[in-house]
Amino acid sequence: MERVYFDHAATTPTRPEVLQAMLPYYTEHWGNPSSLHLEGVAALEGVERARTHLATLLGADSDEIVFTGSGTEADNHALAGVAHALGDKGDHIITSAIEHHAIHDTVEHLGRVGVRATHLPVDEAGLVDPDAVRSAITDRTILVSVMHANNEMGTIEPIAEIGAVCRERGVLFHTDAVQTVGHVPIDVRRMNIDLLSLSAHKLYGPKGVGALFMRDGVTITSYVHGGGQESGRRASTENVAGIVGLGEAARLAGEEMEQETAHTSGLRDQIIGGILGAIPDVLLTGHPTQRLPNSASFCVAGIEGEALLLDLDQEGFAVSTGSACTSGVSEPSHVLLALGLPPDIARSSIRITVGRGNTAEEVDRLLEVFPRIVKRLRDMSAHRPALAERVPHD
Amino acid sequence: MERVYFDHAATTPTRPEVLQAMLPYYTEHWGNPSSLHLEGVAALEGVERARTHLATLLGADSDEIVFTGSGTEADNHALAGVAHALGDKGDHIITSAIEHHAIHDTVEHLGRVGVRATHLPVDEAGLVDPDAVRSAITDRTILVSVMHANNEMGTIEPIAEIGAVCRERGVLFHTDAVQTVGHVPIDVRRMNIDLLSLSAHKLYGPKGVGALFMRDGVTITSYVHGGGQESGRRASTENVAGIVGLGEAARLAGEEMEQETAHTSGLRDQIIGGILGAIPDVLLTGHPTQRLPNSASFCVAGIEGEALLLDLDQEGFAVSTGSACTSGVSEPSHVLLALGLPPDIARSSIRITVGRGNTAEEVDRLLEVFPRIVKRLRDMSAHRPALAERVPHD
Repeated sequence: MERVYFDHAATTPTRPEVLQAMLPYYTEHWGNPSSLHLEGVAALEGVERARTHLATLLGADSDEIVFTGSGTEADNHALAGVAHALGDKGDHIITSAIEHHAIHDTVEHLGRVGVRATHLPVDEAGLVDPDAVRSAITDRTILVSVMHANNEMGTIEPIAEIGAVCRERGVLFHTDAVQTVGHVPIDVRRMNIDLLSLSAHKLYGPKGVGALFMRDGVTITSYVHGGGQESGRRASTENVAGIVGLGEAARLAGEEMEQETAHTSGLRDQIIGGILGAIPDVLLTGHPTQRLPNSASFCVAGIEGEALLLDLDQEGFAVSTGSACTSGVSEPSHVLLALGLPPDIARSSIRITVGRGNTAEEVDRLLEVFPRIVKRLRDMSAHRPALAERVPHD
Repeated sequence: MERVYFDHAATTPTRPEVLQAMLPYYTEHWGNPSSLHLEGVAALEGVERARTHLATLLGADSDEIVFTGSGTEADNHALAGVAHALGDKGDHIITSAIEHHAIHDTVEHLGRVGVRATHLPVDEAGLVDPDAVRSAITDRTILVSVMHANNEMGTIEPIAEIGAVCRERGVLFHTDAVQTVGHVPIDVRRMNIDLLSLSAHKLYGPKGVGALFMRDGVTITSYVHGGGQESGRRASTENVAGIVGLGEAARLAGEEMEQETAHTSGLRDQIIGGILGAIPDVLLTGHPTQRLPNSASFCVAGIEGEALLLDLDQEGFAVSTGSACTSGVSEPSHVLLALGLPPDIARSSIRITVGRGNTAEEVDRLLEVFPRIVKRLRDMSAHRPALAERVPHD
């Protein structure tokens, strides 16, 4: 049985074109970009070309791009870098209740050095209110960090409006755009973004490389210390092949985004319509329309999401209950709780995220299997709540 | 003209066997190791196999290995992680005057949160005295960090003895082993090592992946926050292909170290003998025998090391003046100054580091070209110091 991969929010396959672009940097141009000799210069050229490709995708200048080892490192860098650099201006960070753990855990860690955080609530569709950001800003606020789109339930946040509020109030604005770069148009200027994190492996690039956009004029403390790489902004010998892969993935994404979005959002809507139509007591989580083009996420009352995931895996489908980074954790998702869902409903979540390689036939196959599994699991479970009475505004 | 690469301390080519081991993790097993489905499990198996290979090379258990994005990140993690975790026990770190900037700059950064550092001097051969470590330890000392071998002048430090002093005094011992792992035998138990940093691209693995050995029982604070990867010790989706590459490089290094060392140390001694024999007023920097098997490093009085490097590059040879991470920086090396060398002598440094692919014929070609370039550069320079009177104990 051929496997069907529906977990593109967890990671995407490395595109063959991306791997082809990377290979010469393993076999031929494997020099250290800091070296002054020919071998070093050849490697450096690969890094700088990638920087230009990525900057173009974001509407940035190439010297505003700092390559990192992951999107998570970029998030850590942004938050800790602002907290250190602006420590004498303030100690308050505003973020949202639905951020990735890379933001939440870093904010918590910064609490040890005196940083205070406000976690803004979201509405039942997962949206942060830009007016709530305005109200939360104090004269001690040094940073607002709100994600571009949520990894678990797909809602796209009004970051341009939030960025405008921050700009108006003179506060730096960071967005974790790990789920959107390469999939949703981004223009860092128009969206008033000062800092933006991204990860290559979410846009058909390799794992182990990310980047932090830092607007020209924004000076924050380095996170990894010890060498002059990345213009002194991130020490470590560059992951040259990985960076080249990120650059190529960004270049391809820029060229193909429109057609990819049309393809994935078509499959997404086929999944959403198919599941909501075939199965009673299922809730689409996140915003009904203002959501990632590739993401369909549900709560299926009366079952455990993980049981559904494992049964689908047995039937050949790779899906997720939510964030891959917390798989196997039995706690209900903080994101779904923030939507106002009760813990048992939050535990019934399933996330189906499509990619450029998926087909309508694969979705058809899923829609055959999915209701059957849900029925079996529900038949096995003792209780079956009436969903409509238990979720907010439904 | 075929190029000759003599800069293996800066970076090594990725071995074809290593790349072959990595490729399936780009083309086939590209899942997210945190995912619970089949695709995730396949990726996780690659990561865990690599962990076992690396642990075997170090004489460690596999759960003592934490993969990182670079050797520099591992250094940052070790120092900051101990400083945070043991902040209530003490605030004093002991290190040496010849550490890589990944240590020096991190120690300096930790100064902002109240960490005080002692930088132990070295003798004219670059050795740290274990008795000096003992004398420097106070009841506020939480960590000693002394590198295994110096990247610029090749001296191998008596880390087993230093580790024994630390163990005796109940202080954690970290060593930056970026230059030695895969090239010099390491046994973390016998050497009394609590924390050890390494980098894949120095042992014929890929760039963008490193590791931190943490002895079982040593609990330090995470450095990159935001997910449960690496048993909660380093958040970020794993660089699966890179980690697999590091594992394969470690496995091969363990099998072939003896024959590689015989090969490289033969070439190294051919270079040292040839250059010292052919050119007057040249100083071998570092210890004459207790040094990296692949490293020959010199000061060539009367010239600028960078001019020599660029001329050698023109003639087809890739060498370095010292650390690649600070190439292009005009300051004399802190390592060479720590040996007691005057700044102008320190600026005349050149480092020739051989690898498994080099041959005696390539060294012969270098030994033809090198004296000629030195003579031309010296003829162009106004002064020529009498080296013997200007360096300590020479």
